[in-house]
Amino acid sequence: MSARSLIFPQAEFQARTTRLQGQMHADGLDALLLTAAADIFYVTGFLTRFWESPARPWFVVVPAQGAPVAVIPAIGADLMGRSWVQDIRTWPAPMPGDDGVTLLADTLAELVEKTGRIGLPMGLETHLRMPLADYRRVEAALAPRQCVDATHTVQRVREIKSEAEINKIRASCALAGRAFDRVPEFAQHGCALDQVFRRFQMALLEEGADWVSYVAGAAGQGGYGDVISPAGPTPLAMGDVLMLDTGAVRDGYFCDFDRNYSIGPASAPLAQAHSALWHATEAVLHSLRPGMRACDVHRLLCDEIVKQGAQPGAGRLGHGLGVTLTEWPSFTPQDTTPLRAGMVLTLEPGVALGDGTRILVHEENIVLRENGCELLSPRAPETLPEIS
Amino acid sequence: MSARSLIFPQAEFQARTTRLQGQMHADGLDALLLTAAADIFYVTGFLTRFWESPARPWFVVVPAQGAPVAVIPAIGADLMGRSWVQDIRTWPAPMPGDDGVTLLADTLAELVEKTGRIGLPMGLETHLRMPLADYRRVEAALAPRQCVDATHTVQRVREIKSEAEINKIRASCALAGRAFDRVPEFAQHGCALDQVFRRFQMALLEEGADWVSYVAGAAGQGGYGDVISPAGPTPLAMGDVLMLDTGAVRDGYFCDFDRNYSIGPASAPLAQAHSALWHATEAVLHSLRPGMRACDVHRLLCDEIVKQGAQPGAGRLGHGLGVTLTEWPSFTPQDTTPLRAGMVLTLEPGVALGDGTRILVHEENIVLRENGCELLSPRAPETLPEIS
Repeated sequence: MSARSLIFPQAEFQARTTRLQGQMHADGLDALLLTAAADIFYVTGFLTRFWESPARPWFVVVPAQGAPVAVIPAIGADLMGRSWVQDIRTWPAPMPGDDGVTLLADTLAELVEKTGRIGLPMGLETHLRMPLADYRRVEAALAPRQCVDATHTVQRVREIKSEAEINKIRASCALAGRAFDRVPEFAQHGCALDQVFRRFQMALLEEGADWVSYVAGAAGQGGYGDVISPAGPTPLAMGDVLMLDTGAVRDGYFCDFDRNYSIGPASAPLAQAHSALWHATEAVLHSLRPGMRACDVHRLLCDEIVKQGAQPGAGRLGHGLGVTLTEWPSFTPQDTTPLRAGMVLTLEPGVALGDGTRILVHEENIVLRENGCELLSPRAPETLPEIS
Repeated sequence: MSARSLIFPQAEFQARTTRLQGQMHADGLDALLLTAAADIFYVTGFLTRFWESPARPWFVVVPAQGAPVAVIPAIGADLMGRSWVQDIRTWPAPMPGDDGVTLLADTLAELVEKTGRIGLPMGLETHLRMPLADYRRVEAALAPRQCVDATHTVQRVREIKSEAEINKIRASCALAGRAFDRVPEFAQHGCALDQVFRRFQMALLEEGADWVSYVAGAAGQGGYGDVISPAGPTPLAMGDVLMLDTGAVRDGYFCDFDRNYSIGPASAPLAQAHSALWHATEAVLHSLRPGMRACDVHRLLCDEIVKQGAQPGAGRLGHGLGVTLTEWPSFTPQDTTPLRAGMVLTLEPGVALGDGTRILVHEENIVLRENGCELLSPRAPETLPEIS
């Protein structure tokens, strides 16, 4: 067959499931109900871009012991059958009236005693990827079993990456680094920004991305106004700073970092801002350690930017990374999640420029080790690169 | 600024909102709460790939009268500020403890009387894109206001496309057609399937896609086993049939169609299967009319495949299309949605091959007019094309 084999050996998925089951036990859960693409990929290896279609819900149940059980639309049986999951139950979705509700409720009732607790992620940075009305039917059918929040259970396990996962993220970062190196080939003065975005995506694919789930960026004189917009047709002008940010995917794992380029010589304020971001990042790359909290990283980055004579931008200054473009924790003043060895994280400081309506941002990807940061993205140059 | 301007004139969004408000009135709703990317893009024009990050929820409220109100993370204020929405309320997300919950509940309480009903999509093919626990807090804070299902309200409006929308989908189909024409350049015997997928995505970008949200496909001797898998490194072999399927996006609108290619001369059963699919599609392209139901199209396609001497494959045989890769209705035996002029639809028949474990699928995109189908995708060739 032409289809891809499993991305990891079965032992990887078994180890993840065992870790999840340990955390479930600690958190008093008798089963975990997963509906999101990332969670389902994490425990089964089931990887498909078909999630782009909102037509069908997909379910995986992690019981207290043993292998996961898949309750999925029939169209996915072939692909799930190539995973390590043996117990695959299907229905012909989409099915008005009962779109997997009875099959899922029966499966959970079989796996969990009436006094049991079923966990599903309900908290910050999670969604329930099934119709709300159908979830309510499942919950009602399962009573007196309780459905409770399992955000903590899933996040404490998923946030510690295995070496196999770290290697995948490193590979995504490396291919994106090669694509960033080629930006001067297609981002000269006069090139339309939307064409630059297209050529950047083509470069990412050519360098080995399986697909490109995220590209954003901006260009402007003396900084840019936001970092999440798609591109328009305006040509790059001399004096613009161009930023490109990507989440390219290889084997289901993301990178997430950006690079800045000056179109023609950089103005002194831009050159200084880039230098401040680079040196602030450098300082935190050397000081970050397990045992710090997410909010400590936010404070460290802000302090270092101020030390460099610049003004920190607003918003979160980094986050987790892995099977989605962004994962918890968030480097904000409010997030007290403890940082632990094995976490893959982004450092994403920004500085405010001019009257405060413009910004410059900078991003690197790291894995936190017992003794500090290991870079996964090829380090940005200390000096803002110029495209002449 | 380098960012893209609004994709449609403001009048387009005003007209959509007025239609939604008419349907809300008919369905007894005093406000609509939208959380999904497609719904929010539909009423505001807010288009960003940042939805790829699950970190933050986004909310748009459509009141009974007047313009929508956006309740969004501060990081999106700049981009939303370029839309026609004037009332934009932000919070510094992600915020543990109160991630927009109070701001959203206060906004809804301000716009809806205590006896009012707030609708949100809860039914088939919908998701609530916010944490379930936060939704429950919002719902509790709004009592005695009722939160009810608005799937019907949203779907009956969104399923009828404006001419402006149809033009966008036609443009996506056209660029994908040009990319399909180039497949023989990079899909010869001996090429690894994952490289073919990469080159196909590059061709889509080169032909004008803003991004490629979906590529799937397969290759195999005498048919393929499934149609949703990512590609592996197996090289194409003589006698394989290769299928590529894409949802390429331009200006926020998708195409969704596939094409088949024979690597070397096609076997007689494959050539016959392709011909059966083509002629069955042709017959339905001529007979489809407003007033039929979704289930009628399923039956028509199956009947025509049988008339061609082939065996219909399982699953749905087409669906709606527009701001997501797939929209309702679904051409299944159970979906009784009435078809109306202005709907953009896919016809996607499949036939079973060999021992029934292999299939061949075929897909075209159309807009339903008062007098029948208008093709949006360039029609597939009648004979299975051969790459030699």
